[in-house]
Amino acid sequence: MTKSADPDAIFRQRLDQVAADTEALIDHLLAPTPAEGECLRPTRILEAMRYASLGGGKRFRPFLVVEAGALFRVPRAQALMTAVALECVHCYSLVHDDLPAMDDDALRRGRPTAHKAFDEATAILAGDGLLTFAFDVVARPETHPDPAVKNELVIALARASGLGGMVGGQMLDLAAEGRFATGGLPRLDEHEIATLQAMKTGALLRFACVAGAIQGKASAAERAALDRYGTALGQAFQIADDLLDLEGDPATVGKETGKDAAAHKATLVSLYGPDKARARLKELVGDAERALASFGPAADILKIAAHFVAERQA
Amino acid sequence: MTKSADPDAIFRQRLDQVAADTEALIDHLLAPTPAEGECLRPTRILEAMRYASLGGGKRFRPFLVVEAGALFRVPRAQALMTAVALECVHCYSLVHDDLPAMDDDALRRGRPTAHKAFDEATAILAGDGLLTFAFDVVARPETHPDPAVKNELVIALARASGLGGMVGGQMLDLAAEGRFATGGLPRLDEHEIATLQAMKTGALLRFACVAGAIQGKASAAERAALDRYGTALGQAFQIADDLLDLEGDPATVGKETGKDAAAHKATLVSLYGPDKARARLKELVGDAERALASFGPAADILKIAAHFVAERQA
Repeated sequence: MTKSADPDAIFRQRLDQVAADTEALIDHLLAPTPAEGECLRPTRILEAMRYASLGGGKRFRPFLVVEAGALFRVPRAQALMTAVALECVHCYSLVHDDLPAMDDDALRRGRPTAHKAFDEATAILAGDGLLTFAFDVVARPETHPDPAVKNELVIALARASGLGGMVGGQMLDLAAEGRFATGGLPRLDEHEIATLQAMKTGALLRFACVAGAIQGKASAAERAALDRYGTALGQAFQIADDLLDLEGDPATVGKETGKDAAAHKATLVSLYGPDKARARLKELVGDAERALASFGPAADILKIAAHFVAERQA
Repeated sequence: MTKSADPDAIFRQRLDQVAADTEALIDHLLAPTPAEGECLRPTRILEAMRYASLGGGKRFRPFLVVEAGALFRVPRAQALMTAVALECVHCYSLVHDDLPAMDDDALRRGRPTAHKAFDEATAILAGDGLLTFAFDVVARPETHPDPAVKNELVIALARASGLGGMVGGQMLDLAAEGRFATGGLPRLDEHEIATLQAMKTGALLRFACVAGAIQGKASAAERAALDRYGTALGQAFQIADDLLDLEGDPATVGKETGKDAAAHKATLVSLYGPDKARARLKELVGDAERALASFGPAADILKIAAHFVAERQA
């Protein structure tokens, strides 16, 4: 068996390739030259947006967009446009979540957070700029020839990202930290934690998986399968993240750890304990794999991705 | 002459009608019930988004969208969707601009700013939520039957709002206050001030005027005319705003005044002096009127709007 036939090696290679392509496309799109309809791109905002979106990250969401799209023969260049739009949303959310008024983080991907590298005002604006830019990118001709498909992507991305998705999830998360409570920490039950996480981190991961089906004009059944996969993957991702926060080494993880415990924040890991959490993680990987059964070996790479999510150390 | 034949009264009536319709539509769209694809809409984020977008404002941008759209027979209900999307962007920008790290304002439209009424984290998220929601709204079926038109609206709105438009303008504005300078206040010349303002406030006003042409599938010449009108209107709006900041009464204006002078910020008013600024304002109103000449009396309401912008006291 050659090295390239090793599934994990193939996965790594494809993940790295998407990361490189994503990096190159963001670099290309976030150039100093203004697009049609823009006045000019001021240096400082451009630099801050580039700082927040380039030079780091596994680009796991872009990977999902590209590989789920490949199931439906979405041309890679088109899938990468959607992938970049999604990554812009993800990166903006990190910038805003790191702000002093939010999670107050100094370190992200092993580098100073945007408001440390620049300043708070610039970080707020860079986040706003990245979120706005995401919708510019997704609606462009290069993303898809059919405007109806792009409309669907805009709405799906907005709902995954907005008050009923990621932004709403971050709001619930701050509430779960007791930020707005008058009588101490609210006690979330399992269902409430799951909802919070399905919104805060799950919604974008689900979008990543479903976007390929939208772009590939997949059948309703195929789209539902990708949605089930994305849902299981999102839950697995969050449990793995919470385990890393509990047990990980900041140097490896690339950001501060132990924050949930310090904030006495309820997570599924704090509720289940690490052992039951790991068992649940295994179940979810199985769910993710089963959701893709009808696609056969074409979906192997996405199945490996589910394992990667559950076992990642960073 | 009956009261209803007085042009100013007609303008006021139509402005108020658009304001009422905009208010009602935002109220309807920002309801607790989640849209398809959303998990749930957490109470606190919904309340903050409603606080920031309802119950205030002249709704001048929505008025422009509706009245420019009427020139091209855009159904009012469709124009109002675009108007609401634009107003969400405008309201988000006010919430973020008012933040302590940005302009640090306590008062907006005579009420506490969002971060005072709620808290900073909630205000940041409410702004993010409104910006995201704008793109959800503009891409919906109710906005236009033709997906290609909605795509064009998405891109135009994103570019007017983003790094090459409003967000970039706010970045330049902070720089003009000497926020990032090491050697004192940068001295902007007339062209640089005009560019800053064309981005910070001009871009959204231009979008408001051009959106009607996009929605109405107007000819290139018609669209260019609305663009010229919107450009002149935006410049007039900003000079009037700077005059109000210099000479206005906070109780009438509904926000703190005297901030430009306190920050030693260069504006066209500080450069020209109030008298030359008022003369320039008059010229711009003339430019705005002339841009609409080919539309005849159908565009009278937009011509009156240009006078309103120049002469407003709040």
